[in-house]
Amino acid sequence: MPKIKPSIPKGTRDFSPQTVAKRNYILQVIRGTFERYGFMPIETPAIEKLSTLTGKYGDEGDQLLFKILNSGDFLAKVKDDQWSARNSPEVAGAISEKGLRYDLTVPFARYVVMHRNDIAFPFRRYQIQPVWRADKPQKGRYREFYQCDADIIGSDSLLNEVELVGIMRDVFYQLSLHPSIHLNNRKLLQGITEFLGFEKSYNAFLTILDKTDKIGTEAVCTQLKDLAQDDAQKDKIDQFFKMIGGFGSDSALINGKPGMLIRKLSQLKSMLKDSPQGQEGIREIETIYDHLNLIDPEFRMYMYFDPTLARGLTYYTGSIFEVKLDLPGINIGSVCGGGRYDDLTGIFGLEGMSGVGISFGLDRIFDVLDEMNLFLDTSVSSSKALFVNFDEDSEKYALLGLQQVRQAGINAEIYPSAQKLNKQMKYADTKGIPFVVMAGSEEIKANKFTLKHMKTGEQQQLSLGELLKELRK
Amino acid sequence: MPKIKPSIPKGTRDFSPQTVAKRNYILQVIRGTFERYGFMPIETPAIEKLSTLTGKYGDEGDQLLFKILNSGDFLAKVKDDQWSARNSPEVAGAISEKGLRYDLTVPFARYVVMHRNDIAFPFRRYQIQPVWRADKPQKGRYREFYQCDADIIGSDSLLNEVELVGIMRDVFYQLSLHPSIHLNNRKLLQGITEFLGFEKSYNAFLTILDKTDKIGTEAVCTQLKDLAQDDAQKDKIDQFFKMIGGFGSDSALINGKPGMLIRKLSQLKSMLKDSPQGQEGIREIETIYDHLNLIDPEFRMYMYFDPTLARGLTYYTGSIFEVKLDLPGINIGSVCGGGRYDDLTGIFGLEGMSGVGISFGLDRIFDVLDEMNLFLDTSVSSSKALFVNFDEDSEKYALLGLQQVRQAGINAEIYPSAQKLNKQMKYADTKGIPFVVMAGSEEIKANKFTLKHMKTGEQQQLSLGELLKELRK
Repeated sequence: MPKIKPSIPKGTRDFSPQTVAKRNYILQVIRGTFERYGFMPIETPAIEKLSTLTGKYGDEGDQLLFKILNSGDFLAKVKDDQWSARNSPEVAGAISEKGLRYDLTVPFARYVVMHRNDIAFPFRRYQIQPVWRADKPQKGRYREFYQCDADIIGSDSLLNEVELVGIMRDVFYQLSLHPSIHLNNRKLLQGITEFLGFEKSYNAFLTILDKTDKIGTEAVCTQLKDLAQDDAQKDKIDQFFKMIGGFGSDSALINGKPGMLIRKLSQLKSMLKDSPQGQEGIREIETIYDHLNLIDPEFRMYMYFDPTLARGLTYYTGSIFEVKLDLPGINIGSVCGGGRYDDLTGIFGLEGMSGVGISFGLDRIFDVLDEMNLFLDTSVSSSKALFVNFDEDSEKYALLGLQQVRQAGINAEIYPSAQKLNKQMKYADTKGIPFVVMAGSEEIKANKFTLKHMKTGEQQQLSLGELLKELRK
Repeated sequence: MPKIKPSIPKGTRDFSPQTVAKRNYILQVIRGTFERYGFMPIETPAIEKLSTLTGKYGDEGDQLLFKILNSGDFLAKVKDDQWSARNSPEVAGAISEKGLRYDLTVPFARYVVMHRNDIAFPFRRYQIQPVWRADKPQKGRYREFYQCDADIIGSDSLLNEVELVGIMRDVFYQLSLHPSIHLNNRKLLQGITEFLGFEKSYNAFLTILDKTDKIGTEAVCTQLKDLAQDDAQKDKIDQFFKMIGGFGSDSALINGKPGMLIRKLSQLKSMLKDSPQGQEGIREIETIYDHLNLIDPEFRMYMYFDPTLARGLTYYTGSIFEVKLDLPGINIGSVCGGGRYDDLTGIFGLEGMSGVGISFGLDRIFDVLDEMNLFLDTSVSSSKALFVNFDEDSEKYALLGLQQVRQAGINAEIYPSAQKLNKQMKYADTKGIPFVVMAGSEEIKANKFTLKHMKTGEQQQLSLGELLKELRK
């Protein structure tokens, strides 16, 4: 067989022990917080039927699904007319029935419908698993990446939104990051759409509006006017943006004063007085703020009402969230997002299941922590001690000590052969092992071990009991 | 869109919170043990290039690879003559360049070659990730399942084998299972093959021999005689099986007496006196036993020398392991296996890297523990307490208590709306939440909480401080 220079598919990654440790640190914070809020983990297969996945993520999403070739003589299922047409999408339908998980939301909906009789509703589930998208790989965007989702399904109480805000706050605070949690509401957006007269170009309108925090109020205003049909509509656009003012660009930290919030909400309320949907959206936002006000007097430090936030996904019907990090010089976009959906499971035959969920982006959070050097003294779960291997006698003696050290619950290892001491020390150094234990003929005679602290170079001769005590510290 | 009744691909599974908790319990034992022995985790992508995977698992393995359809107009790469031949394997080569990870060993070899300059050798890595095989699904065999691998690469010291034996022992002991660790050696098998004259039908010979523990010595003897060319060869087969006697069927626990082991090894030594390979294999087994004897006087309780153990994988060149569980009425096969390979990375251009590794089968271990009811009081990481929601006032009061409980690190939740008490209690019961906290107008007035123990029905009125104390217990 010819030797091949190995590589991995573009958009995928290998993770070294150091990186795995850092990722696990983030995952532990997220997992721990989910559990403190009463969420329980489920897992779904990486492989789903294409009938489950297709049509759930829009046309673009369908393009980005990784499809799995049927096993065996897969061409046998291709019909003669498909064969002669030689058209990729047609043939794909005939030779592929399964695909890779594209997100965790659709598999969650499928899970709820399939297992509804075993679930205690409202169902608080979390799920931390990789997903795959045949996206164009670029900096910070991968074809295989983790999502960390928490959803509550089977309850339309806005208290669930409040709980999710608590989770987002707690996760980022624990990671020493200051979150800016942007809140908006699809019903409010519906009201604004009606007020501005964009009902017929709803999607185009939302897409432009959603760019406010990237390109600024003025540019958005111009683009919306291009979309407008007449001058009356253009006037309303001016009126709206004058009213929301600096909403889109100011951080909660600086301008999120309650007085301002109440004023803006009351202005919106009168502006949208003819829209029951808009009124309902405002009421929902007020309810969430009332609860936050009750349980966390500091909520103004991170909550941020943003009437220009729209989010792409079409299945949201109420609250929408997006978390940003205001970090000088680091442009990272959204690190967490989510929202309420009234009918996620309807497509699978279970109606009337309202739910709300959020999803953390592990990779972006990782990049921020890495860039800001915010990873704690990463416990790379490596050995705490390396036993040096001098010769056959020392190996036997060391093995007995090693045995005891491990039984005490301390991670430790022995160098597997009697290589030069230099080489063994270098190994400990490269692996970041903090202590080296040496036992030559002298130590064996005295029934001791020499413990060397790699950082300071300090050495001590210790009995086994003392050694265990030192290593336990 | 038509409503579809959802299902998942055959051979795949959904895992409920209860099952995830049980699986995590096993994984934590395995992970913790790997780390105590100084192994560090890596992760590789689920998707590998087919050039990395193909040809590494034999013809059968190639058939079982899940292939991923190229994105976009994948038919454009199919040549006209391939298309008109309408041959599935040919076309597959043109429309698919990536596949799903089939095991963790080949990706590990690829990883070592690609990252050799960043690795401290000998490299002790562990890897716990799912793999995919387009196998015929049946009881206990899935198309998506986890492997838990530990390997040491870059050292030919037999001390590494001894370390792996320690890991296998520790993992199963911690799970309250008694392992039977079968040990054999490919070099010894080579010697036996030479002695019996099966050099030319090596693979067929090993396949039959490996069945000894399933179909028994006699049946294997008969099948080998069918494979034999002449009477001299048949005599040697008789001689060999007479010598190894009950080897294949007796458990280490009962018959693994050291005297017997030494006698059998010395008989093999004289039988294979003309085979340097066979002698080397025996020497290696003796060395491993010598070390075990030194560090664990109890090793005869679980170690089992089995000269009929062969294992399918062709890349093994020295020691081979297989762990069985002697459980009355439970026929589960091997729950862990592995061996030494001298040239795993050679195919990717890095020669002379000897390594040895083992792999635990999570699903089989799960099935055994489940069947024997050996899962500990599964800490289904659910909430410890549910705060009941009576009305708006009680909700507000409960939210403040809930906040404190969570800040104390206790997992807790509040029912999101003021449903009937019955319904809320049933929810706590179904979810297995051990405590319910109630606060109606009476408690609010007294600034107390009523804590109900779900199992006993016992109720106490407590201050917040007392509540925290109770829940921390």
